[in-house]
Amino acid sequence: MDHRRRINELVSGIEQMGLEGAIIFSPENIHYLTGAPFVRGSYGKLLFVDRNVGASLIVTDLDYQETSDSVNSAEIVKTDFMEKPLDRLRKIVKGSPKLGFEDGIISTALREKIGEYRLEPLRGLIERMRERKDPDEIALIEKAQSINDRAIKKAVDNMREGMSELEIAAELEYNLRREGGESFAFETIVASGSRGVYPHGMPSTRRPSKGDAVVIDFGAKYGGYCSDMTRTIFFGDPGAEVRNAYEAVREAQEKAIESVRDGVSGREIDAVARGILDRLGLGKFFVHGLGHGVGIDIHEAPVVGPSNENPLAAGNVITIEPGVYLPGKYGIRIEDLLVVEKGGGRDLTRFNRELIVI
Amino acid sequence: MDHRRRINELVSGIEQMGLEGAIIFSPENIHYLTGAPFVRGSYGKLLFVDRNVGASLIVTDLDYQETSDSVNSAEIVKTDFMEKPLDRLRKIVKGSPKLGFEDGIISTALREKIGEYRLEPLRGLIERMRERKDPDEIALIEKAQSINDRAIKKAVDNMREGMSELEIAAELEYNLRREGGESFAFETIVASGSRGVYPHGMPSTRRPSKGDAVVIDFGAKYGGYCSDMTRTIFFGDPGAEVRNAYEAVREAQEKAIESVRDGVSGREIDAVARGILDRLGLGKFFVHGLGHGVGIDIHEAPVVGPSNENPLAAGNVITIEPGVYLPGKYGIRIEDLLVVEKGGGRDLTRFNRELIVI
Repeated sequence: MDHRRRINELVSGIEQMGLEGAIIFSPENIHYLTGAPFVRGSYGKLLFVDRNVGASLIVTDLDYQETSDSVNSAEIVKTDFMEKPLDRLRKIVKGSPKLGFEDGIISTALREKIGEYRLEPLRGLIERMRERKDPDEIALIEKAQSINDRAIKKAVDNMREGMSELEIAAELEYNLRREGGESFAFETIVASGSRGVYPHGMPSTRRPSKGDAVVIDFGAKYGGYCSDMTRTIFFGDPGAEVRNAYEAVREAQEKAIESVRDGVSGREIDAVARGILDRLGLGKFFVHGLGHGVGIDIHEAPVVGPSNENPLAAGNVITIEPGVYLPGKYGIRIEDLLVVEKGGGRDLTRFNRELIVI
Repeated sequence: MDHRRRINELVSGIEQMGLEGAIIFSPENIHYLTGAPFVRGSYGKLLFVDRNVGASLIVTDLDYQETSDSVNSAEIVKTDFMEKPLDRLRKIVKGSPKLGFEDGIISTALREKIGEYRLEPLRGLIERMRERKDPDEIALIEKAQSINDRAIKKAVDNMREGMSELEIAAELEYNLRREGGESFAFETIVASGSRGVYPHGMPSTRRPSKGDAVVIDFGAKYGGYCSDMTRTIFFGDPGAEVRNAYEAVREAQEKAIESVRDGVSGREIDAVARGILDRLGLGKFFVHGLGHGVGIDIHEAPVVGPSNENPLAAGNVITIEPGVYLPGKYGIRIEDLLVVEKGGGRDLTRFNRELIVI
């Protein structure tokens, strides 16, 4: 990973904004800029970028060893015992430079706490850099998605009627780990039968049977990057109506995938899938946008849905995941992960989308 | 769960602050106040509390079904297709009441977006309510910790020299799921040998052997509440020096656990463990605080460490987790989960802390 290039790009960006530096708290942004390992939701590190001096990564004792073993694009500064990174920052910042901060992430309480600095919002500067993945990043996401591919294949081979949603999740995650997933991209969804209408349904003790549709949505992290995949698998033959709905979702997904290329907006791609489901009378059950960007975060820019009229760009990594949810009956969703390229989209997902009956 | 009581307590709190209502975004706080299911990091719901009218939970189509199946302490308001909860809020708020907001959570960008309201910071009002668990909450945490107890027992029975950290994580998580974990409380840590000095070490392909210490730190979620447990297990006999260090950490943990009761500060309990490790020459390798509160979040108040001079209160749920990390050599940590009670602490952890050699 060329972290120095990213730091340089950030420095150019802040210079264009008339800033002399930036204070970065988000573990995801720090990982992007330095490769520092991170734990979701942990704010133990602080990256200070000075346009003249370079980047300093302030870490506590707790994280010092692991960080210094893995970062070379920033100077590592260790705090004293029980000293907070913000306290150490005060000793590093000279004068009163104008500094950018992550206004989309920093809470108003934390903003107050750093009120002594002359601060300007970065307005998503780093997140915009992250939207267009470089080849190193795409390679990690491709590897993460291949872990999903192998894990779902093995898990499906072990699925049997009588298993609970929790047991199905156990199989998926067990194989995700053994295939190399260094953690999970998000909380695994296994939602069967009428629970399938919960698009974020956590696995329960419910045991699918008698043709139940089982929505499975899971992902790995590899090298800090996420994969994402959904398949809907049937426990018993679901009958003609549900088979037709499945084929409709599949057609919507395939046609949407064919429409992916640089220059097309998220709204236009969403409309392809939505148009097909509308025509087949299922549009009103497609209650979410078609997809989202994926990278260090499982949900990041760009949005693939009615709200995004901006053109996609080569290097975006996006999901295409139409779904229909019939209250009290069933849910069906199919999701692949793609890289946007010049003139087309490259699907990183290999596992097939034929209707599978256990 | 008595969600109505919590809403009423929140209303009392905001009245005392001279506010007429509050806007709540944090999925954890919304879960606490209403029982609504949530996905970590997803801000798709919005809770509006009006001191005169009561609570309204605004959800998108996507979450409507699952939310209305599980919430009865708030009126559920569904947005129109692609309408955002914030847009719907504008139609609900009458006049220009003074409203509290979660300043510790709301980003400065989101704070700007809701700038049309007269807003006052809540200053951790809800998080302080959450510090003292009621019996229903303690029952869920106890159940979550019992899932950990059973999972680690089964996983240890299956551990064999030659397994990788990833395979060990796979065993732990597989059993956590099968014992009823509805998701994971945090990203599982399995860090062996010299990687054990990474207190947040994600599992890798490393295969512990020859007396390596393996730090295992994992937790389940059950009913929305977290468990948390660390054990250090040896792959082969580690020799006298490491055995002594293990017994020192164990003694530090046991004595700290004995010192837990309401009225004692986090700092005092930390000092018990730190004093023992200091005396045994290991204090300088104990580079973090002794513990933290656990509930809907894996890390919440109160802190059990040198920075917290406030007395613990009955109903706090805390970890006690001393550790020593010898750079280039090994890490050892042992962690139990306790409820603070009048005159003592009740350990929710059953799995023993005898030194285990695989």
